[in-house]
Amino acid sequence: MSEKIAADLVLRGTCELVTMSRREECGSLTRGALAAKEGVIVWVGHEADLEGAVRVDDDGVVVDADGACVMPGFVDAHTHMVFAGDRADEYAARLGGVAYSEILAGGGGINATVRATREAPLEELERLTRARLDSFLAHGTTTVECKSGYGQSLAAERKQLAAARVDHPVRRVHTLLAAHLTPPEFAGRPDDYIAYVCDEMLPALQGEAEFVDVFCDEGAFNVAQTRRVFDVAKTLGFRLKVHAEELAHTGGARLAAEYGCVSADHLIRVDGDDLAALRAAGVVAVLLPGTSYTLHTDYAPARAFLDAGVTVALATDFNPGTCYCENLQAIVSVACQEDRLTPDEALYAATMGGAAALGLQDEVGSLEAGKACDFIVLAARSRHELPYHWGVNLVEGAIVGGRHAGPADGSAAEHTVADGTGPAGRS
Amino acid sequence: MSEKIAADLVLRGTCELVTMSRREECGSLTRGALAAKEGVIVWVGHEADLEGAVRVDDDGVVVDADGACVMPGFVDAHTHMVFAGDRADEYAARLGGVAYSEILAGGGGINATVRATREAPLEELERLTRARLDSFLAHGTTTVECKSGYGQSLAAERKQLAAARVDHPVRRVHTLLAAHLTPPEFAGRPDDYIAYVCDEMLPALQGEAEFVDVFCDEGAFNVAQTRRVFDVAKTLGFRLKVHAEELAHTGGARLAAEYGCVSADHLIRVDGDDLAALRAAGVVAVLLPGTSYTLHTDYAPARAFLDAGVTVALATDFNPGTCYCENLQAIVSVACQEDRLTPDEALYAATMGGAAALGLQDEVGSLEAGKACDFIVLAARSRHELPYHWGVNLVEGAIVGGRHAGPADGSAAEHTVADGTGPAGRS
Repeated sequence: MSEKIAADLVLRGTCELVTMSRREECGSLTRGALAAKEGVIVWVGHEADLEGAVRVDDDGVVVDADGACVMPGFVDAHTHMVFAGDRADEYAARLGGVAYSEILAGGGGINATVRATREAPLEELERLTRARLDSFLAHGTTTVECKSGYGQSLAAERKQLAAARVDHPVRRVHTLLAAHLTPPEFAGRPDDYIAYVCDEMLPALQGEAEFVDVFCDEGAFNVAQTRRVFDVAKTLGFRLKVHAEELAHTGGARLAAEYGCVSADHLIRVDGDDLAALRAAGVVAVLLPGTSYTLHTDYAPARAFLDAGVTVALATDFNPGTCYCENLQAIVSVACQEDRLTPDEALYAATMGGAAALGLQDEVGSLEAGKACDFIVLAARSRHELPYHWGVNLVEGAIVGGRHAGPADGSAAEHTVADGTGPAGRS
Repeated sequence: MSEKIAADLVLRGTCELVTMSRREECGSLTRGALAAKEGVIVWVGHEADLEGAVRVDDDGVVVDADGACVMPGFVDAHTHMVFAGDRADEYAARLGGVAYSEILAGGGGINATVRATREAPLEELERLTRARLDSFLAHGTTTVECKSGYGQSLAAERKQLAAARVDHPVRRVHTLLAAHLTPPEFAGRPDDYIAYVCDEMLPALQGEAEFVDVFCDEGAFNVAQTRRVFDVAKTLGFRLKVHAEELAHTGGARLAAEYGCVSADHLIRVDGDDLAALRAAGVVAVLLPGTSYTLHTDYAPARAFLDAGVTVALATDFNPGTCYCENLQAIVSVACQEDRLTPDEALYAATMGGAAALGLQDEVGSLEAGKACDFIVLAARSRHELPYHWGVNLVEGAIVGGRHAGPADGSAAEHTVADGTGPAGRS
């Protein structure tokens, strides 16, 4: 008789366990179960086999999903979530017909966010970040990437990166996006700003972020400037990301392939050669349909990426200007409706795709032995209810690292696992 | 010294009170307050004037909005919310490329909903309806229209209308949509079904619904059949609504004007003459952009309706086939993004517009003396945050008829008024 596997947490009672261990049907298991020990999954299978395979510690936790669908927590691989101020009035003005250039000229737009973020004390940024992480978690995101880029000085970028480290159960990945836009002090001198980024910011911030990202696009930085940042960042041991081909086709995607970026993001204006280059270099395409929705512009050609064999991730791009949405369920809906992904393609891209875009494909994004025990319980019996029942939050509860996770402020009442009080219950 | 107005509820502490008493800026009052007595608003003004104008009963309730934006509850004037079964798999199949005609041929589509709704006992329909009303309320809707139309027999339509009367704080308006589609028993004999509707269903269901509605469109009922239903319904004292010009231009809009329908709904394929006729007859145009979003089809020309002086309402069209969304905030977002309304136009249409579409413009939809005390507290300081911060639920709490309202099952913890735990807090 073989030894049973020891576990301190088991999940049982699911109607469907969506493992994401395969693309096909998202690795769905009917009445699947799992077991974890010290935050790591040690067994996944059918509930009928659980008892024979797993021994639960005396003080172990049993999570009863009570007939719900359970899936891995979302992995949101592209956010600008640390900022102060809001731009609701700008949103209304733009829908009222005011051009973004006018808003910029009046001191609004991204410059308003840079100003407010620079002025905000660290404690205020931490408070805002904590509240946002609560909402990410309440909507099912258990791993999130946090970019800097609204500081644009060494001190302010460092402050943003520090605020993103606030104590909270959501896992975080940190990206230094100093080369977001040229700040006012360097107006008209983007090369001087790039020199400042390369000579002072990157060396000083080594170890404070895993990734360096550059906004390589029309009106931002060109390919030559992006190369300068990448060359220094690579030498310093940062991994690379790039905002590419969003507003115009400037060569960012092929640069990503050349430098072996972990991901290239946005990618609306790509051609067939770009796709082939990304595929050959193993660069993950991070698509951000919520931004196209908000800006009422073209969507990235999601189907072409999949057909070309490129790994696709879906992320929110959560930011105060062009996509104020922290709910990856809403992004999955837009990806299905506007970008014509199937629900399974979209859900895979929002979990395993996101993990790959952060270089974490062996740690999060699927429910498999050896990976983190990060899962969410839906107010649904099937994964297909998620994009079908849209505009609401179908996440009833989350486990991160094998522990119940609620908002950091302790008001966890509404985040109990599987209490059956989600939108319209389970039909 | 003038007598003070007696009140048993006062609302204070708002940052912005959005009264909807005017279209301009949605009647916004900075630091507005209101007072109500026995569920009816008795005073609205600036908080600075509250104490001088209003005397609160000793056991009166003081609602402190704690710096939030407060607005009228949403009025959702078009839903098919009483049904059994779900069609999540159909949604996935359609995104996978399966045609709706194939789904229908396989027994799916609306016929699946009719079958499940006919088979469901009243108690099951009541349970489903109560759970859905909880979710409508949690998303800020305090008045909702409920159509029948999945029964298509006298007994089953009566059962649907009865289920919609389940005990719940959300106000309801009932619409008999017997003429939704021709049921299987009458396949190929739509005129015979219309005769059954006119001769048996309408007389028998007099008093069980305020409105009669007909799906007048290509593939549903033609103008002549719609006339037959309207003639009988009018004689019996029902008020009229019509599903018109969604799939093709068949004359439903002008018929609505001719018969003095309270509203005509969908209205995607309209021409200039239709707009003039609706305007002249005072018919409210109920636009359903969530359905266009779900079906990935054209949107109604919202701007043309406004320019023509037609009263516009926004509603969800909540139903299991073509728009499974009960959150009017999400519909407001789609209306702004895809149908290019301004946030103020969309918010007005989702409150006062909805009230007008139900003939309730003197009772709900705005915060004015003499109207119902139905308001919602947002996790926001300004009404503009609502469409700006999309994909989440910004409603923190609701008051209906001057009382705190939570889910009917008593799990009201997450619906406390202004507890500041909404998405990302108030920035």
